[in-house]
Amino acid sequence: MSLETTIPERTDHQFLSTIPGVRRFETYPLDNFHADMMETTHAVYPHNDVYGQYCTVEEYIDCPPEVVFEYMKETISLEEWTFSVRDFKPCHLPEVHEGVDKVGSGHTKIYCKTISNKDAMTVDYHCAWDQGEDLWMIYLNRIIPAELVLKKPGSVVLWTNCRHPYYLNNPYPEKAPANRLWVGDLWDWFYAGHAAEMQNLKAILEFRYKNKLPMGPNILGVRQ
Amino acid sequence: MSLETTIPERTDHQFLSTIPGVRRFETYPLDNFHADMMETTHAVYPHNDVYGQYCTVEEYIDCPPEVVFEYMKETISLEEWTFSVRDFKPCHLPEVHEGVDKVGSGHTKIYCKTISNKDAMTVDYHCAWDQGEDLWMIYLNRIIPAELVLKKPGSVVLWTNCRHPYYLNNPYPEKAPANRLWVGDLWDWFYAGHAAEMQNLKAILEFRYKNKLPMGPNILGVRQ
Repeated sequence: MSLETTIPERTDHQFLSTIPGVRRFETYPLDNFHADMMETTHAVYPHNDVYGQYCTVEEYIDCPPEVVFEYMKETISLEEWTFSVRDFKPCHLPEVHEGVDKVGSGHTKIYCKTISNKDAMTVDYHCAWDQGEDLWMIYLNRIIPAELVLKKPGSVVLWTNCRHPYYLNNPYPEKAPANRLWVGDLWDWFYAGHAAEMQNLKAILEFRYKNKLPMGPNILGVRQ
Repeated sequence: MSLETTIPERTDHQFLSTIPGVRRFETYPLDNFHADMMETTHAVYPHNDVYGQYCTVEEYIDCPPEVVFEYMKETISLEEWTFSVRDFKPCHLPEVHEGVDKVGSGHTKIYCKTISNKDAMTVDYHCAWDQGEDLWMIYLNRIIPAELVLKKPGSVVLWTNCRHPYYLNNPYPEKAPANRLWVGDLWDWFYAGHAAEMQNLKAILEFRYKNKLPMGPNILGVRQ
């Protein structure tokens, strides 16, 4: 008898099969799994099933990933590719920009702190309307070299928002201008709005890159 | 006349409006944008429109993000939460694990190199069937602290695959077992399959975390 016989298998199929909801090859018949797949796959999916809790848009951009990252990590670039976020300036909060979201009746302040990671090429915009102390609207972005995932030059941009509970109820109503709509009331339009803004991002970056123009308002040392 | 007057505005609305496809508040009427949003937003979306080119699944997991990250970054954990990837071992390629995908007629080799970033909490599985020199099936994952985006403890996991052209045509057919289906023929089932595997991941991590069990086959120094 060797010591080895006392070492359990590293993957304990029996244990895993006792966890409710776990479906694995060893303990869940392939035919059942196939049936489940057919049950889950539909010709069409309701809006709320796809975009109700999370809103992800993915896009290919014909521009090198390093350039896309450098552009996106500058908060000020949002003034170009968003539909209505403008006029960023420093404010009383460190690393936070104060701007205006023009869709919010024209005088909605938006605060944004951009946190990026060059190695992973993530760029997150931590934002909020009306106040900058509690940044809860988080725009999660990641840039992937398209060479890796689509076998062609350029970038894939992944952009996800999660439905934070503040979308349902404004946590600081006293800081909002009177009779102003709440950003959360727009959640059902986020897919459409973000898809449009992603098209802006793609169009702007591809146009400048193709035409060898300076790449943005605040990068490569050159201003438009 | 001061020097300042020669500095153009940092955001050149006129220039941006000349780029085809760009829609911005200053040069594209809000009413048109609203109409576009209504045009883009549907009651239902065809499978191919949502999952045809990219396949993203998002899920909340009631387990701390650091623990989810530690679990996911170990290639061996895939043996637990995937439906059919098993038996990883080192191979002739550095940092690449060789395993078996049980859905591929039982003798399909799968190769996997896991690249993770602790700061950004990204975990990418760079995989391929049949050979490990050209890893093109890339499973892009990112773990987000749910406190940030959902105002509750736990994690949000984002998982995206992009439709690499090799899904359409096996680039190394000579390395495949005879009469074996090609992984790309399963693309239409990726949403359903990945949603099921994400449920496995959620169930396994939540069960262990809730019951204070060792967290996985190869983490926290304890084996099941």
